[in-house]
Amino acid sequence: MANSKYEYVKAFEQPDLLIPNTWIVVRIDGRGFHKFSDKYAFEKPNDRRALDLMNAAAKAVMMELPDIVIAYGISDEYSFVFHKSCVLFERRSSKLVTTIVSTFTAYYIHLWSTYFPDPEMQLTAPLPSFDGRAVQYPSVQNLRDYMSWRQVDCHINNLYNTTFWTLIQKGGLDAKSAEKDLAGSLAADKNEILFSRFGINYNNEPDIYKKGSVVFRDYELVEHPGMPEAIDEDSAKTANEKELSKTQAEKDRKRRAKARITVQHIDVIKDEFWEKRPWLLSNKPGKIPKET
Amino acid sequence: MANSKYEYVKAFEQPDLLIPNTWIVVRIDGRGFHKFSDKYAFEKPNDRRALDLMNAAAKAVMMELPDIVIAYGISDEYSFVFHKSCVLFERRSSKLVTTIVSTFTAYYIHLWSTYFPDPEMQLTAPLPSFDGRAVQYPSVQNLRDYMSWRQVDCHINNLYNTTFWTLIQKGGLDAKSAEKDLAGSLAADKNEILFSRFGINYNNEPDIYKKGSVVFRDYELVEHPGMPEAIDEDSAKTANEKELSKTQAEKDRKRRAKARITVQHIDVIKDEFWEKRPWLLSNKPGKIPKET
Amino acid sequence: MANSKYEYVKAFEQPDLLIPNTWIVVRIDGRGFHKFSDKYAFEKPNDRRALDLMNAAAKAVMMELPDIVIAYGISDEYSFVFHKSCVLFERRSSKLVTTIVSTFTAYYIHLWSTYFPDPEMQLTAPLPSFDGRAVQYPSVQNLRDYMSWRQVDCHINNLYNTTFWTLIQKGGLDAKSAEKDLAGSLAADKNEILFSRFGINYNNEPDIYKKGSVVFRDYELVEHPGMPEAIDEDSAKTANEKELSKTQAEKDRKRRAKARITVQHIDVIKDEFWEKRPWLLSNKPGKIPKET
Amino acid sequence: MANSKYEYVKAFEQPDLLIPNTWIVVRIDGRGFHKFSDKYAFEKPNDRRALDLMNAAAKAVMMELPDIVIAYGISDEYSFVFHKSCVLFERRSSKLVTTIVSTFTAYYIHLWSTYFPDPEMQLTAPLPSFDGRAVQYPSVQNLRDYMSWRQVDCHINNLYNTTFWTLIQKGGLDAKSAEKDLAGSLAADKNEILFSRFGINYNNEPDIYKKGSVVFRDYELVEHPGMPEAIDEDSAKTANEKELSKTQAEKDRKRRAKARITVQHIDVIKDEFWEKRPWLLSNKPGKIPKET
Repeated sequence: MANSKYEYVKAFEQPDLLIPNTWIVVRIDGRGFHKFSDKYAFEKPNDRRALDLMNAAAKAVMMELPDIVIAYGISDEYSFVFHKSCVLFERRSSKLVTTIVSTFTAYYIHLWSTYFPDPEMQLTAPLPSFDGRAVQYPSVQNLRDYMSWRQVDCHINNLYNTTFWTLIQKGGLDAKSAEKDLAGSLAADKNEILFSRFGINYNNEPDIYKKGSVVFRDYELVEHPGMPEAIDEDSAKTANEKELSKTQAEKDRKRRAKARITVQHIDVIKDEFWEKRPWLLSNKPGKIPKET
Repeated sequence: MANSKYEYVKAFEQPDLLIPNTWIVVRIDGRGFHKFSDKYAFEKPNDRRALDLMNAAAKAVMMELPDIVIAYGISDEYSFVFHKSCVLFERRSSKLVTTIVSTFTAYYIHLWSTYFPDPEMQLTAPLPSFDGRAVQYPSVQNLRDYMSWRQVDCHINNLYNTTFWTLIQKGGLDAKSAEKDLAGSLAADKNEILFSRFGINYNNEPDIYKKGSVVFRDYELVEHPGMPEAIDEDSAKTANEKELSKTQAEKDRKRRAKARITVQHIDVIKDEFWEKRPWLLSNKPGKIPKET
Repeated sequence: MANSKYEYVKAFEQPDLLIPNTWIVVRIDGRGFHKFSDKYAFEKPNDRRALDLMNAAAKAVMMELPDIVIAYGISDEYSFVFHKSCVLFERRSSKLVTTIVSTFTAYYIHLWSTYFPDPEMQLTAPLPSFDGRAVQYPSVQNLRDYMSWRQVDCHINNLYNTTFWTLIQKGGLDAKSAEKDLAGSLAADKNEILFSRFGINYNNEPDIYKKGSVVFRDYELVEHPGMPEAIDEDSAKTANEKELSKTQAEKDRKRRAKARITVQHIDVIKDEFWEKRPWLLSNKPGKIPKET
Repeated sequence: MANSKYEYVKAFEQPDLLIPNTWIVVRIDGRGFHKFSDKYAFEKPNDRRALDLMNAAAKAVMMELPDIVIAYGISDEYSFVFHKSCVLFERRSSKLVTTIVSTFTAYYIHLWSTYFPDPEMQLTAPLPSFDGRAVQYPSVQNLRDYMSWRQVDCHINNLYNTTFWTLIQKGGLDAKSAEKDLAGSLAADKNEILFSRFGINYNNEPDIYKKGSVVFRDYELVEHPGMPEAIDEDSAKTANEKELSKTQAEKDRKRRAKARITVQHIDVIKDEFWEKRPWLLSNKPGKIPKET
């Protein structure tokens, strides 16, 4: 019983290769997490356990996929960045996206009870899930602007949510009134509401809420660098050089796999973050710190 | 702090809409399941618990996504079929694929301990995960040929694996010798080996191994139908008719959501399967069986 | 001097295959033809010479590309239809589109002086040019609806333009007043204006203006057919049958290449057109008429 | 007669936007030019009239599309480069490609008799035509490597063709023998054959054959520049700056449109070409030369 007469259906599969030499960002989002966070009565405006679970899942994804150079998470979303020289899965878009979405989901479900040990919080159907997409960024500037975009969004949303929920939780307002109070308000207004009416200095809020979570491999910081150039890996090289760089790439890959993965809540908008961590853009592993 | 100066990065997101009026098949595959099945010592050639878990996850996916009309699973792969009239997520490819991959993974992890309750079988990192892709099929014939392709593959693989593992488990061969014995053999040869040397009639093997698993909503079978025509939902209709058909579509969606989902191990290659279940190709829900 | 160190740039070329078994429509449009028709003082509302030139170019395209089954033109646009079984250029979208656009343009420029022999009408820079795109239609119904869409558009536009220009040319209105007169008018209103104020019966206008131009290979009409089924060429066939059908396809291709190409101004919306010309949807050449 | 019931077919048109901030290369190729050059008995190995016609058509394309920064032609192929900041046609791939292919074809046909005035050389069906495709290059290095790739190809092909046709035309060999003589030969071998057997110094061959044709807008050369940085046009800018840069872009566009377009036969592989002409990569027009 040959399969040949049906095999023609394989021809309907279309290639979906991302173009070479672009930074690939895979962003995943919780599906229906508004409803989901109600079901499990997540704390407002931020549930620390839920964020820690997101970060733990993101760390696990980066452990399993050493090609990811950095990740950034806020709320129920996470962005994973592949270096522009990445050739994982031949840069097939759906393979990259589904692998990340599936791995992230697996750890989210698996680690749930670690972060929500209360028996009342046990997961029941419908289970949480995530969707995702891949986006290509041609230049380092574009990539950094993407990261800045997400971090500014984190700030904007968190300042709003913090004020909104303070008006409700401490100010006794209902949701509608709180929303109305904040309509058209500027950042300064919200800071003022928090400070003058509730004695809250927004600057003292935890960084994880204000800045989100940045996940990357931990090497020794570089103190006086220039702005790192992201070298064109694929460009003008002889076949010999390519062979050498393959071996090197393999070595680099192994060193990366060994590096500790760290989650930090720091500014990624300014140059300093990138200058001190040149390995992020160069994709060359740095020095392993002596004691961490 | 306006976000506008970074928001331009959204323009790099590219649309990935599937074309209207095609059957959409999302096929997912276990990543590295060869190694994974070794780690947990899955039974060979088939581990019933692992297949039952796959089927349970597939049923859950169909519960959460009523737009899926049928699914078919073998080994560590599953294919989910959206009707050609489906407009879920505006037919965005990555959204459809990642939603299925994530939901499937969530249930696979969540239900693992139900199917593998043994404490020794507890999941540890690296966790199982799945990748996936969407393929479009323009005609019913193409779709049925796709389904036939997978079911023939199931048969070919299972006959091979059954013979291979029998040679090892009952015949005392090592893997290399077994492989050598089977090189170039036809189906008849394998049946003969099983029967004459081990007294096994392949036809008596369980259908779940021979035919795979077909998952669909359960309505009353139709006994004397013609071959169902899959009607062009989107074609020539007045705006009025469209409005009506929207209401109808919503009703149909609810009836589908209520129908029991069944997992069966039967032939999907012959016309009979499709003729008796016209709702699969017409996307019109059938009659709910009185007592099931 | 080896080229190898630069050849990596070929990897940036992305495949753009259309999926198998869909009808491919390539529609081309004149670029800036409003301005162009002013430059050469085309007659309003229709310039017969310009339409004849369009049709001559379309015929030439069909002569050079026997894979095209039918074409339909109105004003400065033309749609070319490849049969769903077409495998020309491996169904590469940009190759199909650019070949048609380039061939059409070549004949349009080359034949210009045949249709506009007046020395004052000689082409000067900027020259007329066309852009184009490919669209896939999965079903015969979708394809026919596409053709109907264009022919209805032809009717709507021509009735409007005929009335508009009659108001100007015979009614002495300026463009603004004519536009205002027609704002919100129905088809019946325009017919009425033409008839009562100018004694023009729109039904007596030439079919080339009212119905556009349909270009196809001319075989003997079939008088009592059923609605032709477009057979799934690619589906379930043995390798042997495929070999046979290749030879047959080659024969068919040659017969098609021999058939006379005709330009007609007839209804393509009703079933009759397609029923009498089953070769259009079946892609099987018909009988060559004895004397035409 | 409303068109609404057919208009749904527009939904089958799929977007094909190229991603922002990439260099876009549209390469077009003569279709079946081997046969075509036989039909018109083009001179071998190079027909100067045919190349001049190609260059004239390319110049015309650049006149009509000021967004093109540079073009490069060899034999019957031409590559047109849009700056990475280009937003023409919203960067729709098929629109960009077909516009170039059509415009090029129009001038090729229109100017044919200027370059081939001999009545015997009049064009007859089948007419020459071109196909084309768009490719995206993320970095300046990638783009320059693309240009180098084509120019190295020009050199390799021309050295081969020059030797091949000299062996035939002056050496009296037939095509097969000439081919055999050259099989496996290196560049040095071909130079040696030309020099020792025919007294031809390949270096003295015309640059148009050895280096191809580079087409660009002519400004004053810059004598001591650094390597120009191609600035990220789209990146971090306030809305205000964007407004300003729009006005600037419009001015730049007009200045570019005024600049004379030049065709030169020079090296584009070394840095010098790009350093002296910073406007090519920066997309900022240079100084118009006083007298050219």
